[in-house]
Amino acid sequence: MILLDGKSTSNQIKEEIAVETKQLVDKGMRAPHLAAILVGSNGASLTYVNAKVKACAKAGFESTLVNLSEEISEEKLLQEIENLNTNPEIDGFIVQLPLPKHIDEQKVLMAVNPDKDVDGFHPTNVGKMALNLPTFLPATPFGILELLERYKVETSGKHVVVIGRSHIVGSPMSILMSQKRTAGNSTVTITHSRTKNLKEITLQADIIVAALGIPEFLTADMVKEGVTVIDVGITRIADDTKKNGFRLAGDVHFESVSKKSNFITPVPGGVGPMTIAMLLKNTLLAAKRRS
Amino acid sequence: MILLDGKSTSNQIKEEIAVETKQLVDKGMRAPHLAAILVGSNGASLTYVNAKVKACAKAGFESTLVNLSEEISEEKLLQEIENLNTNPEIDGFIVQLPLPKHIDEQKVLMAVNPDKDVDGFHPTNVGKMALNLPTFLPATPFGILELLERYKVETSGKHVVVIGRSHIVGSPMSILMSQKRTAGNSTVTITHSRTKNLKEITLQADIIVAALGIPEFLTADMVKEGVTVIDVGITRIADDTKKNGFRLAGDVHFESVSKKSNFITPVPGGVGPMTIAMLLKNTLLAAKRRS
Repeated sequence: MILLDGKSTSNQIKEEIAVETKQLVDKGMRAPHLAAILVGSNGASLTYVNAKVKACAKAGFESTLVNLSEEISEEKLLQEIENLNTNPEIDGFIVQLPLPKHIDEQKVLMAVNPDKDVDGFHPTNVGKMALNLPTFLPATPFGILELLERYKVETSGKHVVVIGRSHIVGSPMSILMSQKRTAGNSTVTITHSRTKNLKEITLQADIIVAALGIPEFLTADMVKEGVTVIDVGITRIADDTKKNGFRLAGDVHFESVSKKSNFITPVPGGVGPMTIAMLLKNTLLAAKRRS
Repeated sequence: MILLDGKSTSNQIKEEIAVETKQLVDKGMRAPHLAAILVGSNGASLTYVNAKVKACAKAGFESTLVNLSEEISEEKLLQEIENLNTNPEIDGFIVQLPLPKHIDEQKVLMAVNPDKDVDGFHPTNVGKMALNLPTFLPATPFGILELLERYKVETSGKHVVVIGRSHIVGSPMSILMSQKRTAGNSTVTITHSRTKNLKEITLQADIIVAALGIPEFLTADMVKEGVTVIDVGITRIADDTKKNGFRLAGDVHFESVSKKSNFITPVPGGVGPMTIAMLLKNTLLAAKRRS
């Protein structure tokens, strides 16, 4: 069993980005600049955004955190987005999700200039992704492709089973893995809550991407010997033995599944850290396009 | 075995569109207006475009055929597209493919105003489709969904196997069928030229969409009893016994596969006629949005 170590791989990628950034800045280019809009003060969102800001600093990027009140009107939020859209100092920006309920999330994502949409959530970028045209790939699927590539996991002609059909992970993963690309050319099955006999399907999989958000859902009896397992889930589970009162669980029952796996991502330290690295990669791409 | 009769179903849809169009025109709305750009005089393309023009007339639409020289420059073609983009009399338009080799097809499709892109080929519309947002669905997949719905073919929780990963049929079909929609909620497997043991997969399918472009590829030994088969292929095969010297073959060996099928589309008269009906439906939608 080989651990797909997202932590060390993402550090390596961030290091590569830092080196490239330094070279570009030495040549006179302004440093890449990522902005993040955070509405309210949700604990998890704040943690994610802070991690992104910190990663920017390490890579030699500039970053701006726009922290808005939980009570901001949709109109004012759209105005903030327009400011970033037109600000020539900002190469790319993200709107940290989820947004408060009184705001139409889709409307907000549609307002982001696709050329600055480094999360790859705007329909124009989703469409380019589906058409296999150059674009900002959504960070989590992009990170998974990168992990598979760097660990040289064979994907061509392999059967990939994706569990979950979210717009952020499951759906784009299924699209990307079926395309002609290094980590791709796979036969892909997308499964979800309506799928019958899921186990019959996962037992056929050479590669499983678990992205349904149910802790420890995928168990050893559902996978075949030699499988590659990508665990996208991350859920806090109450645990009195831990200082902070919880532990993090993925969608995969790691202890049992890992025994049958050729490759498997841990949680934490698998897909999660890759996501931030790919966000930086997209931001660097946006900056390079600018100049 | 029930024939999924695209000819009669599409006639019914066209009739419904004609009735709705008449009602709208009676209320004072200008008739929907579809334009088609045809570059050169490729026989098949001309046939398709003429069929579209004829269908417009039947539905009470106006239509404009812009027939340009095979030698037109990319720049001039883009200018023609811009004319249609800005012409308030045109609700929607299509660029008949394929285009001559000196023209960048992708660049041309990107130039079409997404609000007039009734073929649903622009990345923004492809992205909206992938995100399950309201948009112009590409006509062939849209026609297949409509056929499945009108014949009340059960799709929820069923295993759909798509053969072929083209941007026009295979890829969007696999995306749409996995979504929450009437003809949808399926477990979907997308297969293609790199897929190994295809037969093992098609034998598990409740519904097969064959869109690979190899005549009579899908044979009876590859399907299970009670399958639903959608045949998207249409190839001319030399046949001396026919007056015009050819017959039309689908991707499915109809004679043998139909014996094991619950539902199956014929070729011709299956998916083909549905495509034009859905193009009209998209054009009507564009016209209604305008007013």
